[in-house]
Amino acid sequence: MNIIDIIIKKAKKGELSEEEINYFVNGYTQEKIPDYQMSSLLMAILLNGMTRKETVYLTKAMLDSGEKNDLSQIKGVTVDKHSTGGVGDKTTLVLAPLVASCGLVMAKMSGRGLGHTGGTIDKLESIPHMKTSLSPEEFFKQVNEIGVAVIGQTSELVPADKKMYALRDVTGTVDSMPLIASSIISKKLASGSQIIELDVKYGDGAFMKTKEDAKELADLMIYVGKQLNKEVKAVISDMNEPLGYAIGNSLEVIESIETLKGRGPADLKELCLHICAEFLVASKMYDDYEKAKAFSLHQLESGAALNKFKELVKYQQGDVRCIDDYSYFKQPLYHYEIKAPHTGTLQMVKAMQIGHASMLLGGGRQTKNDIIDMSAGIVLNAKKNDFVKEGQLLATLYSDKKLTKEIENLVLTAFVYQ
Amino acid sequence: MNIIDIIIKKAKKGELSEEEINYFVNGYTQEKIPDYQMSSLLMAILLNGMTRKETVYLTKAMLDSGEKNDLSQIKGVTVDKHSTGGVGDKTTLVLAPLVASCGLVMAKMSGRGLGHTGGTIDKLESIPHMKTSLSPEEFFKQVNEIGVAVIGQTSELVPADKKMYALRDVTGTVDSMPLIASSIISKKLASGSQIIELDVKYGDGAFMKTKEDAKELADLMIYVGKQLNKEVKAVISDMNEPLGYAIGNSLEVIESIETLKGRGPADLKELCLHICAEFLVASKMYDDYEKAKAFSLHQLESGAALNKFKELVKYQQGDVRCIDDYSYFKQPLYHYEIKAPHTGTLQMVKAMQIGHASMLLGGGRQTKNDIIDMSAGIVLNAKKNDFVKEGQLLATLYSDKKLTKEIENLVLTAFVYQ
Repeated sequence: MNIIDIIIKKAKKGELSEEEINYFVNGYTQEKIPDYQMSSLLMAILLNGMTRKETVYLTKAMLDSGEKNDLSQIKGVTVDKHSTGGVGDKTTLVLAPLVASCGLVMAKMSGRGLGHTGGTIDKLESIPHMKTSLSPEEFFKQVNEIGVAVIGQTSELVPADKKMYALRDVTGTVDSMPLIASSIISKKLASGSQIIELDVKYGDGAFMKTKEDAKELADLMIYVGKQLNKEVKAVISDMNEPLGYAIGNSLEVIESIETLKGRGPADLKELCLHICAEFLVASKMYDDYEKAKAFSLHQLESGAALNKFKELVKYQQGDVRCIDDYSYFKQPLYHYEIKAPHTGTLQMVKAMQIGHASMLLGGGRQTKNDIIDMSAGIVLNAKKNDFVKEGQLLATLYSDKKLTKEIENLVLTAFVYQ
Repeated sequence: MNIIDIIIKKAKKGELSEEEINYFVNGYTQEKIPDYQMSSLLMAILLNGMTRKETVYLTKAMLDSGEKNDLSQIKGVTVDKHSTGGVGDKTTLVLAPLVASCGLVMAKMSGRGLGHTGGTIDKLESIPHMKTSLSPEEFFKQVNEIGVAVIGQTSELVPADKKMYALRDVTGTVDSMPLIASSIISKKLASGSQIIELDVKYGDGAFMKTKEDAKELADLMIYVGKQLNKEVKAVISDMNEPLGYAIGNSLEVIESIETLKGRGPADLKELCLHICAEFLVASKMYDDYEKAKAFSLHQLESGAALNKFKELVKYQQGDVRCIDDYSYFKQPLYHYEIKAPHTGTLQMVKAMQIGHASMLLGGGRQTKNDIIDMSAGIVLNAKKNDFVKEGQLLATLYSDKKLTKEIENLVLTAFVYQ
């Protein structure tokens, strides 16, 4: 077998066999196939696509390229959620304690973020002293005692994906359904949970620009999961605007706590209740979705989920005083107010621009080695369909840096009037 | 400007601007853009194509990436020929002395070959003591005295092409019209001759598989040449079968000498006379193609072209005794006869397989550092439309190596019956 023949076959719209797919995934992971051949093949895949069969083989080959988490020591039903990424997406922070309070187990190993905000682990670390690195023994003990843990991924799951994703990022080959699907599903299968829910986002702030594309990607991932014997469910959610009002690490943690206190934004709350209810049905704790959702809502409103969050923070040595008094979070040096330039009704608040502005304020990483300012970010004061008067507050920006014209402009023009 | 944006633009079928094309050609030549980004872009170009405008910009950027030959010291009209490559293609060996005997000048700097046989320079070096490396002074002196020289290219013409071609070769991105056209035309423009004739081959043994594709490529190259102020002419020729009967370095030189003696194969003779006549018309020595062709034929039949070949060999210190006595060429240790397995009329002799077999016999290079066996190769004893009886000789193989089953089989199955 020869990598050039495989590249030419895909360039001529051929369907690659399982052997051919294993050959290039293993060859690339083991550094026998150089970057320049892999990037040529990735571009051919981007432009000519892959069949569902090829996507299954690709996912399997990637899954088999490294270790898999063994969660067999955990009692109970393990669930996991994956979001395709969006601006202000703090779903895991609310969902993890919520599902644990419902009796399910979320033993989550999560990543750090590159882009508009940090990943879930970065966000959690905005809670002073919060430990996100545990030994396997500590991790399993915590999960078995309180039903939830959220830590950084340590063992090398899916090294093929790590290498391929880094290459795709710099060769214009990110935007491909089969490559996105195999990347996500291989990682989720390697993470070891029994039930997986995918939150596939569409719109301005997401990879998928339209609802139809998000649906297609979700269907593909459900199909691939099924072929590899894993129950995968999916929700399609709107990411034209940021989720909730807060963007930035500690700002998102605070909004999550507010949601656990029953005062959160409707979109975030609804999404968390929906996913939780799907987990309860998939785990067979409930056979009726509506009843499962009512139970989820009860756990949120009764304070059970908030208590679970406190247990989580305490177990991972975070400062629980934060939960009741937000002044325990690091405070930014400055805040800036962005006012409405004229009166009218808002059509949308462009998620991508808000995310980019938040990153420039210090809330995200531009390169892998950047250090995040945990207090930096943006809180929106108005969203879609809101009527605003000239001079009314649109957004508040938090940072240790001086505001630049670029950032101010990004935020101002993100607010689109009808 | 950013290479990732350029890749994505081409992946989305965008038309690249002159600035964008200059950016990636210069960036890659100067090693600021890595191979893995270039190969991704090349695959996007292969699959999404380039407009004629883009192809002109690409050719110009490549042409400007290095030095250009200055042939202004040469008296007379300089002509040059380029073949897109085929099996048994020894046209230059006949054409160079023929055009010089007609009063035109062929000051040719040629390459070595990778593949089924060596390049023109390798073939010439099968003549004992033939010198193919001259100083610029020696080169111009020879050309001005006898009207012809064929030497290896020394100065670095079109470094962008050299780097890009090496990358295309290993990334499945060879087979692209705009990339082939810009590669050929940039090199031919840099080589400095006044009139350029392209021999665009099609069929089993050529890059272009169909006559239509060859025509399209020829039209594109003529167009690009015109935009860059160079008269480019083209002939479309059949390469389903090898050209002539001989494949291999000294074997092809011998067949060329036979042609210069008036005993060559019809296809090779016709192609050389046609190109020579086109040169004579383009240079305005003749205004009528038929008269030009008659003059070319006269120069061939009168022995004038053969005498010019002798002058060429003598001037470059080759052993002229070879020309009259082929035993002065290196002789192979073995020869093997391939016989017809049954009686019938031949439909074709697959050029690619014959070329590959010749390479395996030692006549070509598989990798850059392989040493060619000058005496190795194949002489066909039958071609298309020939009626052969069972046991009749189909081909004779020459080599210093023992014959393998693989080679025998390649040659046998190259002969396709009607």
